[in-house]
Amino acid sequence: MPPRIIFLDKLPFRFVHFENSLLIYDKSLLNHFPEMSHWMRQFRATYGVSAGEGLKDLTYFAEHVRKIQQKLKGAVDRKTFVIVSLGGGSVGDFSAFFASVFKRGVGLYHIPTTYLSALDSAHGGKTALNVGGVKNQIGTFYPATKVFICKEVLRTQDKIRATEATSELFKIALLSGGNFAKKFFSSSVEGDQLIWKFIKRAIAAKYKITERDTHEMLGLREKLNLGHSMGHILEAHYLWPHGKAVAYGLDFALKWSAKRDLLPNNKAKVLLDYLQKKAHIDPLNDRNLGKLSKKVFLKLLREDKKIAYNKGVAKKVHIRFQFVRGLGRVQGVYVNLEDFCNEAIRQGWVRDT
Amino acid sequence: MPPRIIFLDKLPFRFVHFENSLLIYDKSLLNHFPEMSHWMRQFRATYGVSAGEGLKDLTYFAEHVRKIQQKLKGAVDRKTFVIVSLGGGSVGDFSAFFASVFKRGVGLYHIPTTYLSALDSAHGGKTALNVGGVKNQIGTFYPATKVFICKEVLRTQDKIRATEATSELFKIALLSGGNFAKKFFSSSVEGDQLIWKFIKRAIAAKYKITERDTHEMLGLREKLNLGHSMGHILEAHYLWPHGKAVAYGLDFALKWSAKRDLLPNNKAKVLLDYLQKKAHIDPLNDRNLGKLSKKVFLKLLREDKKIAYNKGVAKKVHIRFQFVRGLGRVQGVYVNLEDFCNEAIRQGWVRDT
Repeated sequence: MPPRIIFLDKLPFRFVHFENSLLIYDKSLLNHFPEMSHWMRQFRATYGVSAGEGLKDLTYFAEHVRKIQQKLKGAVDRKTFVIVSLGGGSVGDFSAFFASVFKRGVGLYHIPTTYLSALDSAHGGKTALNVGGVKNQIGTFYPATKVFICKEVLRTQDKIRATEATSELFKIALLSGGNFAKKFFSSSVEGDQLIWKFIKRAIAAKYKITERDTHEMLGLREKLNLGHSMGHILEAHYLWPHGKAVAYGLDFALKWSAKRDLLPNNKAKVLLDYLQKKAHIDPLNDRNLGKLSKKVFLKLLREDKKIAYNKGVAKKVHIRFQFVRGLGRVQGVYVNLEDFCNEAIRQGWVRDT
Repeated sequence: MPPRIIFLDKLPFRFVHFENSLLIYDKSLLNHFPEMSHWMRQFRATYGVSAGEGLKDLTYFAEHVRKIQQKLKGAVDRKTFVIVSLGGGSVGDFSAFFASVFKRGVGLYHIPTTYLSALDSAHGGKTALNVGGVKNQIGTFYPATKVFICKEVLRTQDKIRATEATSELFKIALLSGGNFAKKFFSSSVEGDQLIWKFIKRAIAAKYKITERDTHEMLGLREKLNLGHSMGHILEAHYLWPHGKAVAYGLDFALKWSAKRDLLPNNKAKVLLDYLQKKAHIDPLNDRNLGKLSKKVFLKLLREDKKIAYNKGVAKKVHIRFQFVRGLGRVQGVYVNLEDFCNEAIRQGWVRDT
């Protein structure tokens, strides 16, 4: 069942009961959003965490669970207990995984505090922890029961975060096509204005895809990887924020689609210009950071999980790449790792040596 | 979907393909069942573990995952990958939890190596790890896709294990009633003969209950706790094998049911005599081990998870106890912790001081 999505101006108060809930929250929020302290008092217990990939390291999971148990003091009724996650992607991933395995699964509410998580990771029910530096090796499919999209909370972010998150909005508009895409790609606003204008439609569009393929078995969800194959490599290598990396990943996918004659050049140009303008990316400039070596590129590519298999055994020669053929027309195609690498050389991301 | 249950004389070979599987096995099996070495060669990787509660400690889970990843060398396709668990309850719980969270869930086959797990824990889809000494705090509902009940493997056990496992068989026959109970309670064989005679019916009866209440939300599965409220206390305190502890737990439940006039005395006597004879228990003798203090008893009782709640908050004054009213007639009733303790005093398990 999809979660209830609740749009609010302020943090949920009084009309939701949290006396049998544990709040897991990003500690840094207290600095720029002190009003939350009062709100936090209604919970049975609260657990502050430091956001980031470190939180998702399986090594520390047992320690977190022990600390949480101490905070809870006493028995928990799994049928009524709820974990409330207040934070961005990493806090949401950690909290959701915890909720999915604590007492064999308790309730879960997300209150995303970043535009990216409000648009993307709080929806779709994928939870994840990392093992030995490899991302998302451990996880569950566990949709939240409720997601609160709360203006007061999201507005505490730096403006740049809204610009970065534009890439996920761009992706979902492109995937959806139709009226949503038409309105999105002709919109004159940007940043958080652009997000507030389209967030409802973007979330609805994501659920339309994930609900039909909850456990990622039908090949529908894979379209959501648009821009992510290259995006994950750049994110890992340059330690960029996810939104920024995906913006460049989309830029890469659009250019490759045009090169393969899947997308007419004039259409690609319109989309690329729009992306560049709204996500504030500058492919030429950023690339001067230093190109990746072929070896590093292929290593990062192999580590990403979208690797194709031959009779279940990883041959590691193909990956599934999402190409763009037009608005609402995204197509997964098996591509050779070598071809992927050559395209990355052609687009100037990888050294030709 | 319930797993396929496959009854075999020997370990599954050739007709099942394991080249994309990981075998997680109880290392000690190699000592009394050396034939398995040859069979193990067909797996993509094997991972030997030491059975017992230590294996289920969440603290070491991350370390196990890292070691398994090293053994697997390279990418894993979650759609076709299968974890095969060869072991008893703890190995099955560990493997099943791992399978449920590895890559957000891969395939799972159980090959139980103990009568208890063949009758009970390999079925029903409950996985579990312990945290800070508290049992089964972390887990998932994740039924196996296949369960192999393999004579050659189960027969490597000591005979006493079959006698202990009789208690779970007794429980399920009592819960089921009907023809199964009639035949079971008039059977003249015992030990492994008794188990082989009724194992198919017992497994089918368990699925009949668990399939209707997979996520333990309807209060049907709770009947499977018959004999376990007291059993868990004895298991934890005297460090008894689970089967033996449950046998005494059943003895306790039958006597309390008779005391409360829920079960006629003559019927209780027949069942108690049968239990004593088949499970080789001797309540009077074993109790001379030393009675529990009231304090320890209540502490162990509170730690067990079947605590009742008041509006979701644990009041810890009631537990749900399964009473016997007759064959196929088991009823959960809220009982006061104090009443439970008094009955334990009356039956001579707890000191009256």
